[in-house]
Amino acid sequence: MKECLFCSWKDEKEKIILENEYAFARFDEFPVNKGHVLFMTKRHVKDFFGTTLEEKNAIFELIEKAKVMIDEKYKPDGYNIGMNCAEAAGQSVMHVHVHLIPRYKGDVANPRGGVRGVVPKNQNY
Amino acid sequence: MKECLFCSWKDEKEKIILENEYAFARFDEFPVNKGHVLFMTKRHVKDFFGTTLEEKNAIFELIEKAKVMIDEKYKPDGYNIGMNCAEAAGQSVMHVHVHLIPRYKGDVANPRGGVRGVVPKNQNY
Repeated sequence: MKECLFCSWKDEKEKIILENEYAFARFDEFPVNKGHVLFMTKRHVKDFFGTTLEEKNAIFELIEKAKVMIDEKYKPDGYNIGMNCAEAAGQSVMHVHVHLIPRYKGDVANPRGGVRGVVPKNQNY
Repeated sequence: MKECLFCSWKDEKEKIILENEYAFARFDEFPVNKGHVLFMTKRHVKDFFGTTLEEKNAIFELIEKAKVMIDEKYKPDGYNIGMNCAEAAGQSVMHVHVHLIPRYKGDVANPRGGVRGVVPKNQNY
């Protein structure tokens, strides 16, 4: 295995569900919900702020495609798209990755605020 | 006020901190943390999946600029970038907006997982 987990994922071709020139996608191994997908750059970059415009566009092209797949397969009621940039923000693998998390009615008691929940006491308002 | 809150924000020029052809930015009125900024399209679009490539690029151009401003002013230790798409995902204003949430060491006991916290029981793994 390579030193960086997501660099090594790039070589595990059979687990890649979507790919283009600059990015690839794979199901999260610890899914928050059914259909949770991660999008990584092919190049080793620490976080989203280090990506080029081409890499950002490559990621968002794959996100749109993944949504179509997941809509069809799991029929979620919504999605969160999110990134953790740096350890203080919850990043644990230091290679840029974007989360696409399908949401289902009733998966939490009160979904209001969504990604604001990174600081739970301030999620709702 | 217009029917859509974020369409009306577009006209409150004095509160806009950054703007380009397709998007604008403003501080969140209920900030999760110091320096929490929201990025909206100028066009009324429900969520991120309805945006054009130009609108996505416009938003991410402003995010990069906001990061530079916030880094200088508040010196955070990281950032979450996130979107809630549909009510089941926590969206409350039905006009696309992206959250840039600065994170500070110690703002939560265990930040690991970050945006995975939209479903709190599955944030950590």
